[in-house]
Amino acid sequence: MRIDIITVVPDILKSPFEASILKRSIEKGLVEVQLHNLRDYVTDNYKQIDDYQFGGGAGMVMMIEPIDKCISDLKSKRDYDEVIYMTPDGETLNQSIANQLSLKGNIIILCGHYKGVDQRVRDHFITREISVGDYVLSGGELGAAILCDAVIRLIPGVLGNETSALTDSFQDDLLAPPIYTRPADYKGWKVPEILTSGNFPKIEAWREEKAYQRTQEKRPDLLKE
Amino acid sequence: MRIDIITVVPDILKSPFEASILKRSIEKGLVEVQLHNLRDYVTDNYKQIDDYQFGGGAGMVMMIEPIDKCISDLKSKRDYDEVIYMTPDGETLNQSIANQLSLKGNIIILCGHYKGVDQRVRDHFITREISVGDYVLSGGELGAAILCDAVIRLIPGVLGNETSALTDSFQDDLLAPPIYTRPADYKGWKVPEILTSGNFPKIEAWREEKAYQRTQEKRPDLLKE
Repeated sequence: MRIDIITVVPDILKSPFEASILKRSIEKGLVEVQLHNLRDYVTDNYKQIDDYQFGGGAGMVMMIEPIDKCISDLKSKRDYDEVIYMTPDGETLNQSIANQLSLKGNIIILCGHYKGVDQRVRDHFITREISVGDYVLSGGELGAAILCDAVIRLIPGVLGNETSALTDSFQDDLLAPPIYTRPADYKGWKVPEILTSGNFPKIEAWREEKAYQRTQEKRPDLLKE
Repeated sequence: MRIDIITVVPDILKSPFEASILKRSIEKGLVEVQLHNLRDYVTDNYKQIDDYQFGGGAGMVMMIEPIDKCISDLKSKRDYDEVIYMTPDGETLNQSIANQLSLKGNIIILCGHYKGVDQRVRDHFITREISVGDYVLSGGELGAAILCDAVIRLIPGVLGNETSALTDSFQDDLLAPPIYTRPADYKGWKVPEILTSGNFPKIEAWREEKAYQRTQEKRPDLLKE
């Protein structure tokens, strides 16, 4: 899988891809992530990538031309399955979208910044608009990092133990059950006895019950679907 | 406002706070963000911060002791309004939670990693559990960065033009209307005429209509609330 991220502030995105699971998956060759600085696609001397809104109003708008040039340049080199725009009014990311995207070959992710991109970019170049949640961020960069993390960790071989991702919250529409590790007694706060019983069928049943209980309490909407 | 972030992989979080709006708000003294490496609170020689799950199963669990030590150390120095744990089964972050948190003084954000933290941490130290969305990430670090970004940009003085945040999507339960900038004609794709008319009351009415239309089409759930 190859992910090309287009941004005006590539600096934001450096460290997320240079640490932990994302770093290791890149090093293992399981995914390639390239950052593209939109300013490299501007022809004028001022390196202008944004301008005032037509019709007035606060906040700058990212211009269509540099984005067109960058996307066209990438598309001339290879085929892309999706050109995704990160935007709070896109479809809300969930585990099932992450699962779908983890099966793609090449994708482009365009990060909006300032007030967002010229609407014509969305109308003519974007194939999918994704939001990471119902809140506004200063740019699409952290959303892109979240999307990459959610997707890349699902690629086979990225996580050390493949069963780990499948027992996460949401994969079966249930939240994960409570987890505990040593010490069994910390300042008088004890681990539930069942977990140290060695009775694995009973432990499995306890976990299923707790996962269901927790989902019922915190996210009954997941059970209704 | 002061935000203390507790993590086992502080490296992930370096660049998001060293660029763009977050960097400038820190430089202006509007917010202080401190990263704490959980490994600095481990007493044994192996710097062990995680261990196997009681009852078996894939994925490591973050141990309670280093987290207790780190939180206690912070609390001995100042009072905190919230100790937040980033977790996919927490309450889902939205603009109204971001607005609330932007009014707080000091908060701690604990990032889970691996399979998550020992349940006793959640039972005894955490005052609020927040999820950035219905998907699983390799750790809470990017979620913490998202939370900080969503919250910090709302602090007065952080955004250059204060009206900018108030016209964003979600602040009035409507998605933002389409935006355009120069050129008015790009390869034959034209900006809607109304926006270049100079008739500001009409432009305002057009924007309201478009915001409503877009919300109706993409997120009718926002209109029902």
